[in-house]
Amino acid sequence: MKKEKDRLRFLAADAVRGFTAHCGLTPVSLEPGRFVTRVQIQECHLQQDGFVHAGLIATMADHTAGYASYSLVPPNRRILTVEYKINFLAPAIGEHLECRAQVIKPGTSLLVAESEVYATRGSEEILVAKALLTMAAVPQEKVPKSGVPGASAV
Amino acid sequence: MKKEKDRLRFLAADAVRGFTAHCGLTPVSLEPGRFVTRVQIQECHLQQDGFVHAGLIATMADHTAGYASYSLVPPNRRILTVEYKINFLAPAIGEHLECRAQVIKPGTSLLVAESEVYATRGSEEILVAKALLTMAAVPQEKVPKSGVPGASAV
Amino acid sequence: MKKEKDRLRFLAADAVRGFTAHCGLTPVSLEPGRFVTRVQIQECHLQQDGFVHAGLIATMADHTAGYASYSLVPPNRRILTVEYKINFLAPAIGEHLECRAQVIKPGTSLLVAESEVYATRGSEEILVAKALLTMAAVPQEKVPKSGVPGASAV
Amino acid sequence: MKKEKDRLRFLAADAVRGFTAHCGLTPVSLEPGRFVTRVQIQECHLQQDGFVHAGLIATMADHTAGYASYSLVPPNRRILTVEYKINFLAPAIGEHLECRAQVIKPGTSLLVAESEVYATRGSEEILVAKALLTMAAVPQEKVPKSGVPGASAV
Repeated sequence: MKKEKDRLRFLAADAVRGFTAHCGLTPVSLEPGRFVTRVQIQECHLQQDGFVHAGLIATMADHTAGYASYSLVPPNRRILTVEYKINFLAPAIGEHLECRAQVIKPGTSLLVAESEVYATRGSEEILVAKALLTMAAVPQEKVPKSGVPGASAV
Repeated sequence: MKKEKDRLRFLAADAVRGFTAHCGLTPVSLEPGRFVTRVQIQECHLQQDGFVHAGLIATMADHTAGYASYSLVPPNRRILTVEYKINFLAPAIGEHLECRAQVIKPGTSLLVAESEVYATRGSEEILVAKALLTMAAVPQEKVPKSGVPGASAV
Repeated sequence: MKKEKDRLRFLAADAVRGFTAHCGLTPVSLEPGRFVTRVQIQECHLQQDGFVHAGLIATMADHTAGYASYSLVPPNRRILTVEYKINFLAPAIGEHLECRAQVIKPGTSLLVAESEVYATRGSEEILVAKALLTMAAVPQEKVPKSGVPGASAV
Repeated sequence: MKKEKDRLRFLAADAVRGFTAHCGLTPVSLEPGRFVTRVQIQECHLQQDGFVHAGLIATMADHTAGYASYSLVPPNRRILTVEYKINFLAPAIGEHLECRAQVIKPGTSLLVAESEVYATRGSEEILVAKALLTMAAVPQEKVPKSGVPGASAV
């Protein structure tokens, strides 16, 4: 119990580094199979029309689903994204984005998850994207070595 | 002819700003319906295992297809991503990523495109992702106003 | 009110012909933006391992979402499937399949919908597939003529 | 060599039964990682506007990619579709449909494939759909039993 809480706390912190730190991702809550993250929208997140770039929205959808998946597999398994599909439902503007991901089909080697991304503007919250994702849970020893110093395993 | 060349040059430059500038995207070549972009891989692009984050790869796939689509529509139309699906085929490591996008089905209001992302490591080039994307060409006056200062139209 | 009920009744009946009649599709209920259909599983629906073929499941997911979309657009618009993505979550066996589709983003020219397909075996119901779909609502006069005798418009 | 030819011949024949026989699928050619199939268009394949139903096109795209995948894995592995995404590029009318599938990323447990579906009308051939698919190669003993008499393994 204590161990699971520690693991969840570890994963939520681990989710922010490298590209996701660069994108300003912050964890909001992580429970088994469900993860919520947030990004404060900044100038560097926008595209040519002043909306949040689809690439940031997709990054949140993917990464949040990835760590929701991590929370359901043994610590010696690594999560890699096999593929996903994402629909953009409305232009994203506002103060921040919130992504809510949940695993809809757990599994030993494959997991399927859904992510919803909402934009908050004042008191209004709008669903701006929805994604359906397939994740692979790969035994750590089968993940190729990146050779990047500092890259480590959970 | 001259006008089209100017338009292509304008679009290739326009493709790098906001989030894509933040991601280090650079244009390589743009011709009608085909766009190639590149990113020099940096520490800030990686995920927890030392590979390039799927979010960056997807951003390239989406954005490069978006501007390939721009090159086929009248200047008063804006391209917005309707949706896409992306498969990750190999962990991405190396010196840089190159994305090659092409429109496979042009159209007045909807375009379908494909993107391939390659990772270069020394003399080796590996296909790391493939995406299939749907783009909407929206008349400029129908694009909602973002209210973001500095956001402008092509 | 009466008119809308008539329209829904018409659409539910219209949904079964040609390929969907060949597949054994039957309408269960149709309300604005939501449609439920069913197929009694037969030998001719199976694949090489004795499960229901993914093609039948995808046909249900697509068609049911299509008519859920029809229920939200004016009668002079035709629904055509732009694209979809479907995940198969469990092998499908049992007495019948039920597909529940709903539009998650209505629109004048594009609609986004979700479909879930369940297999019923005795008292057990299992989610066997989930799909995310993009539909186009095309003015009837812009739909190309098929030239097939008997093909008619709603 | 002889053995591989026998295996390919076996697979091409095995591809037509149950739902695909019901749909009128016929094999055209199968070589390692590539499969071509065809369907003569009939009244029972159409949808409400007189075009070939998207469900039949998707069935071809999926099944043809599935058997292209079978040709690359050991005989004791079964291919199951994990997921796919398909774009419909033009309304399908004509005498027959031809689907060309190829594996773009082989693998021990996961394979990624592409399918293109063409409609032939007189001397004209039109690309009507393109799909990107993920297949699982599952050891036969791990495939659940369907309990359907006559269901057998390749």
